[in-house]
Amino acid sequence: MTTTNAVYLIPIPICEGENNTLSVAIADVLLKVNYFFVEDLRTARRFLKSMHPTIVIDNLHFSEIDKHTGADLNLMQQWLKKGYNIGIMSEAGCPGIADPGADLVAMAHKIGVRVVPLVGPNSIILALMASGLNGQSFCFVGYLPVKDPVVSKSIKDIELKSIKDAQTQIFIETPYRNDKLYSEIIKCCNNTTRLSIAQNISSPTEFIKTKTIAEWKKETLVLGKFPTVFLLLG
Amino acid sequence: MTTTNAVYLIPIPICEGENNTLSVAIADVLLKVNYFFVEDLRTARRFLKSMHPTIVIDNLHFSEIDKHTGADLNLMQQWLKKGYNIGIMSEAGCPGIADPGADLVAMAHKIGVRVVPLVGPNSIILALMASGLNGQSFCFVGYLPVKDPVVSKSIKDIELKSIKDAQTQIFIETPYRNDKLYSEIIKCCNNTTRLSIAQNISSPTEFIKTKTIAEWKKETLVLGKFPTVFLLLG
Repeated sequence: MTTTNAVYLIPIPICEGENNTLSVAIADVLLKVNYFFVEDLRTARRFLKSMHPTIVIDNLHFSEIDKHTGADLNLMQQWLKKGYNIGIMSEAGCPGIADPGADLVAMAHKIGVRVVPLVGPNSIILALMASGLNGQSFCFVGYLPVKDPVVSKSIKDIELKSIKDAQTQIFIETPYRNDKLYSEIIKCCNNTTRLSIAQNISSPTEFIKTKTIAEWKKETLVLGKFPTVFLLLG
Repeated sequence: MTTTNAVYLIPIPICEGENNTLSVAIADVLLKVNYFFVEDLRTARRFLKSMHPTIVIDNLHFSEIDKHTGADLNLMQQWLKKGYNIGIMSEAGCPGIADPGADLVAMAHKIGVRVVPLVGPNSIILALMASGLNGQSFCFVGYLPVKDPVVSKSIKDIELKSIKDAQTQIFIETPYRNDKLYSEIIKCCNNTTRLSIAQNISSPTEFIKTKTIAEWKKETLVLGKFPTVFLLLG
């Protein structure tokens, strides 16, 4: 099947309003797309308005990706087969990375429609760039297991893996558990292991620091409930 | 030490001239920086001229990151302590990710100077977004070992790991070996494993396709010597 339509993966700012963290190309692409799959409808509409204040939202078609049941893949298939350009937007950052969207993209590949990833903020890559840790080999493992003895075991496993493979290990946590996770890391890891903490990335309150565990132990750090990326290299 | 200067991690286009793949903020940041560590001097100068045609290159200070001995960390330390804003640019894409720069950033953290990562194209993240493979858990392993029985073993290991951890495995190859690596993957992997190939990312000749190994076997694919990212999920 040869089509001229495309699926555009459209990053939006991590911090609402910080549209200068988006690539220049995005504003133009948005004018070519009338059909959207979005993680959050209100965020998506506000974003589109912020990029193009005169845009008529009622002329656009949105399908919200359900938190539990996922995206409406039948609708995706219909829209693709009708030759529509389709945009996918998550609630913050890049769709499909630690966010929904991958199953929609997989459907586009299955049907043979071109997929175009656009450049925008991704907290994992920004944190890694800014960490000074190894960017030649790295692993994003998502969330760590929650329960207590399991957490400390998985932190130790991750530290061990980072040493064995000389590979930066990257993980996140539900914000209200940041401080608990931080104290577990400080408790479990070797003093020489480097830990990078990147909080509120690409916002005016961005905080990014890399220190050894021994150095962190000398600080009083309160992370609070802000989105945080943890990076570790033993 | 409290300073007001910063180290800016400045992405440049992956494909020369495609400046609309950069975030809007970069043009302004460049006007604040007079001291640069760069992977390639000529690329850096051409890029700066393309962003600001009236810029006076002779007023800027450049230190090239040596391919063998790395960056001049003593000079970095001097510049940081003098309170200069410093920019780090690789030859393409984001500094510090599969590219030099991390040791300079580590020095900034050591001295306590703020590190600011800017948004730009990164072929690993763009390929992952566009692959439709798992973006909740992924691993970039860099280059695979070169020698023959070793290559097939490491491909099998990577496939196994992707199955065990439900984790997308991402790797690259020196372009002239692309086709050899591709044929090895096709030979070694399970028919149901999904392989995504992303070539010339963020350029006008961008090619991104995801298929199962069984489906790839039916194609005649010649990758040639273009930069390619491979993504695999068994």
